[in-house]
Amino acid sequence: MRMYDIIAKKRDGENLTNEEIQFFIEQYTNGSIPDYQASALAMAIYFQDMNEDERAALTMAMVHSGDTIDLSDIEGIKVDKHSTGGVGDTTTLCLAPLVASVDVPVAKMSGRGLGHTGGTIDKLESVSGFHVEISSDEFVKLVNQNKIAVIGQSGNLTPADKKLYGLRDVTATVNSIPLIASSIMSKKIASGADAIVLDVKTGAGAFMKSKEEAEELAKAMVSIGNNVGRQTMAVISDMSQPLGRAIGNALEVKEAIDTLNGRGPEDLTELTLTLGSQMVVLGGKAETLTEARKMLEENIQNGKAIEKFKEFLTAQGGDASVVDQPDQLPKASHIIELEAKDSGYIKGIVADEIGHAAMMLGAGRQTKESEIDLSVGIVLNKKVGDRVEKGESLLTIHSNTTNLDEIKEKLYNNISISSSSVQAPELVYQMISE
Amino acid sequence: MRMYDIIAKKRDGENLTNEEIQFFIEQYTNGSIPDYQASALAMAIYFQDMNEDERAALTMAMVHSGDTIDLSDIEGIKVDKHSTGGVGDTTTLCLAPLVASVDVPVAKMSGRGLGHTGGTIDKLESVSGFHVEISSDEFVKLVNQNKIAVIGQSGNLTPADKKLYGLRDVTATVNSIPLIASSIMSKKIASGADAIVLDVKTGAGAFMKSKEEAEELAKAMVSIGNNVGRQTMAVISDMSQPLGRAIGNALEVKEAIDTLNGRGPEDLTELTLTLGSQMVVLGGKAETLTEARKMLEENIQNGKAIEKFKEFLTAQGGDASVVDQPDQLPKASHIIELEAKDSGYIKGIVADEIGHAAMMLGAGRQTKESEIDLSVGIVLNKKVGDRVEKGESLLTIHSNTTNLDEIKEKLYNNISISSSSVQAPELVYQMISE
Repeated sequence: MRMYDIIAKKRDGENLTNEEIQFFIEQYTNGSIPDYQASALAMAIYFQDMNEDERAALTMAMVHSGDTIDLSDIEGIKVDKHSTGGVGDTTTLCLAPLVASVDVPVAKMSGRGLGHTGGTIDKLESVSGFHVEISSDEFVKLVNQNKIAVIGQSGNLTPADKKLYGLRDVTATVNSIPLIASSIMSKKIASGADAIVLDVKTGAGAFMKSKEEAEELAKAMVSIGNNVGRQTMAVISDMSQPLGRAIGNALEVKEAIDTLNGRGPEDLTELTLTLGSQMVVLGGKAETLTEARKMLEENIQNGKAIEKFKEFLTAQGGDASVVDQPDQLPKASHIIELEAKDSGYIKGIVADEIGHAAMMLGAGRQTKESEIDLSVGIVLNKKVGDRVEKGESLLTIHSNTTNLDEIKEKLYNNISISSSSVQAPELVYQMISE
Repeated sequence: MRMYDIIAKKRDGENLTNEEIQFFIEQYTNGSIPDYQASALAMAIYFQDMNEDERAALTMAMVHSGDTIDLSDIEGIKVDKHSTGGVGDTTTLCLAPLVASVDVPVAKMSGRGLGHTGGTIDKLESVSGFHVEISSDEFVKLVNQNKIAVIGQSGNLTPADKKLYGLRDVTATVNSIPLIASSIMSKKIASGADAIVLDVKTGAGAFMKSKEEAEELAKAMVSIGNNVGRQTMAVISDMSQPLGRAIGNALEVKEAIDTLNGRGPEDLTELTLTLGSQMVVLGGKAETLTEARKMLEENIQNGKAIEKFKEFLTAQGGDASVVDQPDQLPKASHIIELEAKDSGYIKGIVADEIGHAAMMLGAGRQTKESEIDLSVGIVLNKKVGDRVEKGESLLTIHSNTTNLDEIKEKLYNNISISSSSVQAPELVYQMISE
């Protein structure tokens, strides 16, 4: 088998066999196939696409390019959730204890990474004492006991995906549905997921700017999952404005506590229930999405969800008293209101730019070496469609510096106010379950 | 300027600017742009093509990536001829003295290279004493004096093309019209051509298998030439069977002598006159192709063409008596006839396979290190459309070994005989002059 022939075949619009895709991934990972051939193939795939069989084969070839996590000692169906990334996305913090409260096991492997705010682990470290440095055995024991635990990423997972993604990033071949879909799915599967729920974001703050693209990606991933024996469902949700109100690490923990107590922002609550319902169905704890949603709503109302959160924090060394006294969370030294310059209706809050402002405050990492400030961030007081009067607070800045001119200018530039009334955007555009 | 943006732009079907193309070629040649980005761009060009301005810009950027030959000390319009390569193509040996005999300067830079037979220099070295180791000054002096000289390739011509071609060769991006056309044209222009005549071959023995592809390539090159101030014309000619009758170095020199004497094979004579007419018009020595052809035919008849060949050989140390006594050329020790196994009409002589048989006899280089045997080769006694009787000679093998079973089998396998009559293929499919 020769890489040249594989490139030529795909270039000419033919379908690659499982063996050809495995050959490419194995030989590329071990360095026998050079980058310049891999990038030519990636560009050919960009133009010629891959069919369902090819996508499944590529996903599994990447899964087997490195270590895979064995969660078989954990009882039940392990359902993992993946979001394509957005701004102020607190759903994981809400979802994990919520679905664990109805006995769906949540064995979460999480990272830190770059972004507007920290990763799930960073956020949880806002809780004093909480840590993810636990052994694999302890992790398994905790999930079996409490149905929930979080551990840091370990092992050499999907090295083929890491290498190929790095190459695509510099050769203008990132934006290809089969390559994005197999990249995401291979990571989830290598992490041990039996079933997968996907939250595909669309809008200014998302990678997929249009609903059509988001739908194509969601369908591609659901199809891969179902083709490789991992039941998969997806939601397409709005990311034209940030989700919920909080953007920042401790601020989002506070927001998650509110949501688990039934007092969270409407959109975050709704998305949590939507994704949670899919997780509960895939986890085999309910027959229908409606039934699942009812179970989750009940556990918010009866306090089981917030109790599960406390149990989870305590089990990993965290001081759970923070749940009842959120004042104990890290606090910024300056609380500054951004006042509306005009009266009217909020027309737009450009998600990625607001996220970038939060990062400038120190809420996220610009480079791997950056230190995160857990206390800082932004809380939106108005969302799209809301009425605002001149001088009223648009948002609250939590900062450890008062030198905010640049950040304030960015925030003003990315919040638009209209004199006529504005319709709030739909939150969940579509649910895809097969 | 970033290579990433250039790749993305082409990927999205936009046109690259002159500056972007120059940036790519300069930075790729000096190693600042890595192969993996260049191959991604090549694949994007494969799919999205380049318009006329881009093709011209790419050609000139490659011309300026290295040395260029300055032929300005040579009087007159220097017309170069390029063939896309075929089997038994003796046209250069015939054309050079023929057009020089009507005062079109032929300043030929030639190589050795790989192939079924040697390059023009190898063939000419069949003439005892002939050599191309002359200084640039002597080269210029000879062309001004005799209108003809041949020199070996020197200098670092079009390094960008060499590097890019090497990359395309292993990334399935060779077969792209804008990339092939700019590659060929850049080499001709860097070699100092003021005007260019192209012989684009089509058929089994050619790179362009179909007439449509050949026409597209020819038009692309003519357009580039005219857009960068080098008047260019092209011919699309048949290479389904070998051109002429001789395939081999000394054998082709003998065939060229016959042709310049007016006794050459019909097809070789015709193609020589067709290409020669274009060279004479571009060289400014005739107004029309008809007028030019008449001048060339006259010089064959009146002996000026063959005299020019003698003058040329003598000027570069060759023993020109070989022209009147071709028996002095290197001779193989065994002359073997390949007899027809059936009677009928020659239906096909697969050009590239016959060429490969000649290489197996030793007429061409398989690797750069191979030694060429100037004496060996094949002379076709029948061509497509000819009547043949069982036992009659199809071709004559000139060999220095008698171990010919494999070669004979290859030859038999690639000459087909039909019981019904066969039309000889057209030789010149099209002439493109603007």
